[in-house]
Amino acid sequence: MPYPETTDAFTVTDIKNWSTFKRQEVPLKKFEDHDVDIAIDACGVCASDVHTITGGWGEDIPLPLCVGHEVIGKVVKVGSKVKNVKVGDRAGVGAQIGADLTCGNCKAGQENYCPNSIDTYGAPYPDGTISQGGYSSHMRAHDYFTFKIPDGLDTALAAPMLCAGLTTYSPLKRLGCGPGKKVAVVGLGGLGHFGVLWANAMGAETYVMSHSPNKKEDALKLGAKDFIVTKEKNWAEPWKFQFDIVLNCADATDRFNLPDYFSTCKVNGYFHMVGFPDKPLPSFMAQAFSPNGCYMGASHIGNRPEMEEMLELAAKQNIKSWVETIDISEEGCKQAVERVWKNDNVRFRFTLVNYDKIFGKRA
Amino acid sequence: MPYPETTDAFTVTDIKNWSTFKRQEVPLKKFEDHDVDIAIDACGVCASDVHTITGGWGEDIPLPLCVGHEVIGKVVKVGSKVKNVKVGDRAGVGAQIGADLTCGNCKAGQENYCPNSIDTYGAPYPDGTISQGGYSSHMRAHDYFTFKIPDGLDTALAAPMLCAGLTTYSPLKRLGCGPGKKVAVVGLGGLGHFGVLWANAMGAETYVMSHSPNKKEDALKLGAKDFIVTKEKNWAEPWKFQFDIVLNCADATDRFNLPDYFSTCKVNGYFHMVGFPDKPLPSFMAQAFSPNGCYMGASHIGNRPEMEEMLELAAKQNIKSWVETIDISEEGCKQAVERVWKNDNVRFRFTLVNYDKIFGKRA
Repeated sequence: MPYPETTDAFTVTDIKNWSTFKRQEVPLKKFEDHDVDIAIDACGVCASDVHTITGGWGEDIPLPLCVGHEVIGKVVKVGSKVKNVKVGDRAGVGAQIGADLTCGNCKAGQENYCPNSIDTYGAPYPDGTISQGGYSSHMRAHDYFTFKIPDGLDTALAAPMLCAGLTTYSPLKRLGCGPGKKVAVVGLGGLGHFGVLWANAMGAETYVMSHSPNKKEDALKLGAKDFIVTKEKNWAEPWKFQFDIVLNCADATDRFNLPDYFSTCKVNGYFHMVGFPDKPLPSFMAQAFSPNGCYMGASHIGNRPEMEEMLELAAKQNIKSWVETIDISEEGCKQAVERVWKNDNVRFRFTLVNYDKIFGKRA
Repeated sequence: MPYPETTDAFTVTDIKNWSTFKRQEVPLKKFEDHDVDIAIDACGVCASDVHTITGGWGEDIPLPLCVGHEVIGKVVKVGSKVKNVKVGDRAGVGAQIGADLTCGNCKAGQENYCPNSIDTYGAPYPDGTISQGGYSSHMRAHDYFTFKIPDGLDTALAAPMLCAGLTTYSPLKRLGCGPGKKVAVVGLGGLGHFGVLWANAMGAETYVMSHSPNKKEDALKLGAKDFIVTKEKNWAEPWKFQFDIVLNCADATDRFNLPDYFSTCKVNGYFHMVGFPDKPLPSFMAQAFSPNGCYMGASHIGNRPEMEEMLELAAKQNIKSWVETIDISEEGCKQAVERVWKNDNVRFRFTLVNYDKIFGKRA
């Protein structure tokens, strides 16, 4: 029972053997009028994939599970109510694949905060089917969560924009990033490198804060004005009251001395997290916010207009993410997630490619 | 060596006996061109006074110490550069009495975040003198931190506005409180009751969240639309995504389940703290912010324009704080701080009054 009932997927079947991928057919949700089927050509490997399959964000995951939520492919079928794409288009899907589209948040254009949001993988559809991600031959996605990829963007470079890109673009946009603003991006990984690319493209003066002095060269190449090593005690002293936005892309925040980071915010500035550690944040005094009246928060991906804006910006300014491609296969998936887990020279995103080689040309 | 070299003050001399006040002369800073001398008529009793003298916010306090930073009195002397008040005016001083007025924050009108800010009591002036508060006969204050009290405001009711009032007004203002907004005030004490009064006066739909069901009647009298008891498990469920601003005026936040409070914020709403516990905040997962992309933060009093605006608003709308007056004396100070410490039916602020009886008419 192959596609269109199923997708041919590289799945994790056991969180204890989270890097062993088994190729098997897994069911797709029932095709409905608003659905789009995509024959996948590329999928970014997100740290979320690894947090999920290792059980770091919760051990209760539905198995077998196919992860991957930075998907680009060719539209092969559309339902009668689909408006955003047509058969033959190059289209992408990010980390959200469904929402009720009727609640207050959805109506306010905040579908990424819909309480009935459906994640691209590992989430139950109303019919009980579990959503399955992009390490597979096909994806079935709701029209509202399907995005036409602008011409000029390379598939492998654009795929990671669908999650890591949007996750960093949305808070920068909402917090007013632009000319005259100073932004510090904490942690130079998949998320962080997008943070630097976007903040720069939006016209802000951009800095990188990192524990690893050896990332300086890359930070400057990406467009950072300066590089701040957060390793030594009192590292924050010279940077007090400097940044409108500190975009924390690290997932090691549980080991941060948070008041140091807060202190680098301008009055009423923001320490905004998009990387989430497996462990709770360290405790601190409420007074840590009071020397500058700053705020700490986090966000969850972004909404549709932000996704479209971001892709347009990338196309217009010819913004290139730094991607290493890996051919999709059991071995390719294993290598990708293990290297992400070990943080083994990931500069700064893996994209699984060459789907045709494994899955054939799909129409 | 009485005034003008000293002020006749009720002082704490030992944090172990923090409610025993000893009347004695303590030195005032050297009088300078921008200084204003005030013969004090009233002083609010702030929870900060109690956190300070008990050592709760740090045991290293300069002794003897006279606390009190919600001061109103009559201007009796002004330096040659004073612009904001003249001799004979009724004037007030809040929790800040000095700043460098030259740093980036001061130049941006954010003097309440000046790194060289001088607290109204217990802080060293550049000349080494320790600032002394309003449980005393006289106060010497910098012109910039002295405020003419609008006619029509009662002295005893206006005094607590100088700190508790401003501390709640400033974040409401900065976070856009006004018509069409929904605000929840957490904790109905000295700060919280001002939170309700201001949010209402600014036109927001205002709610009170409290652990104490018996505060409901007062909350509604103050103008709250509804009262939310935060005692039972799942109390937050019906209030998800409801509030633009949750203004946390409680100082028991170290015992809160913070994600419950966060969940009541609208998308990108704020959980803003103005009450500070003696202990660190409880730890939580970074993901607690992600269902609605909310922010947590805190602020430190407010700036001069906000103070002036707030006093005008209070005068214009005839806003009356709820105050119990206590005659100033060793016994009166003791009773006031002990009742604040025990939270013994404080509804919602004590103001020390009848200064003339103890200190005589001062010119």
